Amino acid sequence: MAPPSSSEGDAHGEERPPASPGPVDAALTVPRGVAQVDFQSSHWTGLIFIVALFVGGWEFGVFGLLGTVAATLTAYLLGVTWNQISLGLEGFCGTLIGVGLVLYLGTSWMTAALVIGAAVAGSVLTAAMRTVLKPYNLPTFTAPFCVVTTAVVIGAPSFERVWSGHPDSSPPSATDPGTAMTWHDFWQGVFNGIGQVFFQDEWYVGLIFLIGLAVASRLVAAAAFASSLLGLLIGWWFGAQAADLGAGLYGYNAVLTGIALTGTFIVLSPVGVVYAAIGAATAAGLTAGLTDLFDVVGGHTLTWPFVLVTWVFLAAVPILSRLRRTA
Amino acid sequence: MAPPSSSEGDAHGEERPPASPGPVDAALTVPRGVAQVDFQSSHWTGLIFIVALFVGGWEFGVFGLLGTVAATLTAYLLGVTWNQISLGLEGFCGTLIGVGLVLYLGTSWMTAALVIGAAVAGSVLTAAMRTVLKPYNLPTFTAPFCVVTTAVVIGAPSFERVWSGHPDSSPPSATDPGTAMTWHDFWQGVFNGIGQVFFQDEWYVGLIFLIGLAVASRLVAAAAFASSLLGLLIGWWFGAQAADLGAGLYGYNAVLTGIALTGTFIVLSPVGVVYAAIGAATAAGLTAGLTDLFDVVGGHTLTWPFVLVTWVFLAAVPILSRLRRTA
Amino acid sequence: MAPPSSSEGDAHGEERPPASPGPVDAALTVPRGVAQVDFQSSHWTGLIFIVALFVGGWEFGVFGLLGTVAATLTAYLLGVTWNQISLGLEGFCGTLIGVGLVLYLGTSWMTAALVIGAAVAGSVLTAAMRTVLKPYNLPTFTAPFCVVTTAVVIGAPSFERVWSGHPDSSPPSATDPGTAMTWHDFWQGVFNGIGQVFFQDEWYVGLIFLIGLAVASRLVAAAAFASSLLGLLIGWWFGAQAADLGAGLYGYNAVLTGIALTGTFIVLSPVGVVYAAIGAATAAGLTAGLTDLFDVVGGHTLTWPFVLVTWVFLAAVPILSRLRRTA
Repeated sequence: MAPPSSSEGDAHGEERPPASPGPVDAALTVPRGVAQVDFQSSHWTGLIFIVALFVGGWEFGVFGLLGTVAATLTAYLLGVTWNQISLGLEGFCGTLIGVGLVLYLGTSWMTAALVIGAAVAGSVLTAAMRTVLKPYNLPTFTAPFCVVTTAVVIGAPSFERVWSGHPDSSPPSATDPGTAMTWHDFWQGVFNGIGQVFFQDEWYVGLIFLIGLAVASRLVAAAAFASSLLGLLIGWWFGAQAADLGAGLYGYNAVLTGIALTGTFIVLSPVGVVYAAIGAATAAGLTAGLTDLFDVVGGHTLTWPFVLVTWVFLAAVPILSRLRRTA
Repeated sequence: MAPPSSSEGDAHGEERPPASPGPVDAALTVPRGVAQVDFQSSHWTGLIFIVALFVGGWEFGVFGLLGTVAATLTAYLLGVTWNQISLGLEGFCGTLIGVGLVLYLGTSWMTAALVIGAAVAGSVLTAAMRTVLKPYNLPTFTAPFCVVTTAVVIGAPSFERVWSGHPDSSPPSATDPGTAMTWHDFWQGVFNGIGQVFFQDEWYVGLIFLIGLAVASRLVAAAAFASSLLGLLIGWWFGAQAADLGAGLYGYNAVLTGIALTGTFIVLSPVGVVYAAIGAATAAGLTAGLTDLFDVVGGHTLTWPFVLVTWVFLAAVPILSRLRRTA
Repeated sequence: MAPPSSSEGDAHGEERPPASPGPVDAALTVPRGVAQVDFQSSHWTGLIFIVALFVGGWEFGVFGLLGTVAATLTAYLLGVTWNQISLGLEGFCGTLIGVGLVLYLGTSWMTAALVIGAAVAGSVLTAAMRTVLKPYNLPTFTAPFCVVTTAVVIGAPSFERVWSGHPDSSPPSATDPGTAMTWHDFWQGVFNGIGQVFFQDEWYVGLIFLIGLAVASRLVAAAAFASSLLGLLIGWWFGAQAADLGAGLYGYNAVLTGIALTGTFIVLSPVGVVYAAIGAATAAGLTAGLTDLFDVVGGHTLTWPFVLVTWVFLAAVPILSRLRRTA
């Protein structure tokens, strides 16, 4: 999810032309794609993330990989530059589409077909958003995943063969008024805030993701942990439901926003860290409003708060002379 | 709805200045406007479309023409270049506003006044969207119609004199879970998919529209027919309600998307045709989600799926080296 | 809310560097910020507006000032140019955030904290929107206020400590079908249309705002009065509820749109005045649709109709050769 290189759209100027990437390089696009959900391009981080998904449940691992491969392959076949594909930037939305759809629609062949179709649409949408956001130097983030998954989930009840696979247990919601938070809610909530980026709500799965981040960068891991804590505290201060806090639902958007604004897309500085903290807190606060909004139409919050808040906080930088973009 | 010429915004550079178009040329803007709903600029096609509307019901013909004239006249009075007006590009949203509002609000003088007011607002919105979309080289499509009609239909129940004219029978909806499709549903659904672009659900009206398209171009007619069939099959595969399939509700957005992406705005090629088929299928799939979304607030699906999907599929082209825009 | 100067984003080119504005100049940014809600930069107008707010209720004055100061200070600390701050352009969204949140959430320390947090977010959003709208030469208007307040109000019921301060009496809504308008509704409604820009529904408060406008410019005051009258008449003609008309709910968006399009952002001319009247009428008509839309999710209409309609009517100008922008 790093800013696209200047050679994009011009396949002839690439060192490695799209027609002949090596098989190892091609295979590594998959773990890199998974790692890019958290803005990392290290395939080791991606491999640890894949382990975490399988620990969370075999279906998350399998459907997440299916989505990653389908999205990456679509981008390759439609002629996206190899540089963009190689960094995993064409895979991560597919990863989340796979994990999200299997969570909301259940395991079935129809869900597998939908994951492939949604990943294809997500790849086209990624390209469209890159065109639209280019003048503002904004990355697409997980917006294509959010758009495609929202459309599928809202439309699904209209289709008998799609919705029949729907699991009874819906994931916890962030919309009911709150009660007292226990120590158990607190410490598990901080780890779950990291795992919920991938829809996971077991603390040890969140811990594996945190280890994966630390392999890539200690700064990123620290930013993720601090942001998850901050998001949880914001929700607790406002009086959110303890169950939602414990499930990490106020943390995961803060985590992504915190990583993005702490050195990744904005130059690291004291003002920059304060700015990142304000952004992470805003993403946590916005979670409730968007959850209420999507509940009305049967949608889900996904990573919408992160996408919207981080776009705004990056687009503001040219006007704010105390801050600078990294690229 | 072809890409606007390079001389737009500069009335002095036109061959025919706006102050003095010939009476025949001025009169032909009306059928051209109706034809532009399906991206055609042939007035013969437009005349056949007008016949189809009157066969569907006198009110569709009369209110459709009223909207076309009101929208075109507004654009002329506000100083839009004659080139843009002459091609019918300022009329087609007015056509659909007229047909849509008389369907949802019933025949009355108040509806006629609303059609004129909505067509005026639609013309201003068309100009605003052209400004905003110009850097991305995207046409406005039927988006102004969708925005204006959605606003009027959602707001209408607040107004006693507007809503009193509301007909009891609402058009068929695409949101209930499905059953088995009959042969009758199937073959009528394919023609209705072409007619539903103009809110028509009689197979022979759809057939007249298809003839109108064939007069302009056999390729366009073939793309429309194939896209309607594809949209219906997608809906059937997912398990949509047979009545909705038979009414063409999964076809009309696929039809518009299919025509737009097959040679109209993207250069015709094998990859381009596959891309158009993916786009048409996506538009059909998106229909259910948007219908569910609009149902919550009393809105209607209109041609939103076509507009959104086709914008995305065109905006993606600069990133996808296997595809090229026609202009 | 005047078009930003060409030196924005370059603090070095300013006459008065951000580090050392005089104390009087710094203090005057507050009334100027309040005045900019109605596009004025006169601090006398702002002082009269502040009086009007306190006449409406102490909490509107206090929370409005709190929001103005918080938003302005945030912009200053993040390095927005002093020119932009000095004109009050960084304060007015904070004013409305303060007044709006105290109306919907009640007076409490939590509301005060939320006003500060929302004003900070609103300042960042203002900077982001300026970046995005710059290529189209569109001002941000009250959009940051609308976005932030909508997000807070929709999310508030999820938070026990935020929502407990919620007052029982909700403001009048513009969504119920109408009855006969009395003379009392009529004349009070015209003044209330001016006061409702700041959520005030006492005719004499509206009158004080009108006096404040007249101090700045008689043309602006006349445009505001005529637009409020026009909005009310549009609502009455369509058959809106008399109570809503009397509360000025169909007037305030027309007022802002009318001022913006009459000489403020579009060069004054006969065609321009007709265009402004169409815009004001459109904003009044759109009020019902947006109110119905926001009701579903627990949001409020705010000044969304003004923002959306005025953006469209300004963005259209480059295509419409009979009209010209002021800057």
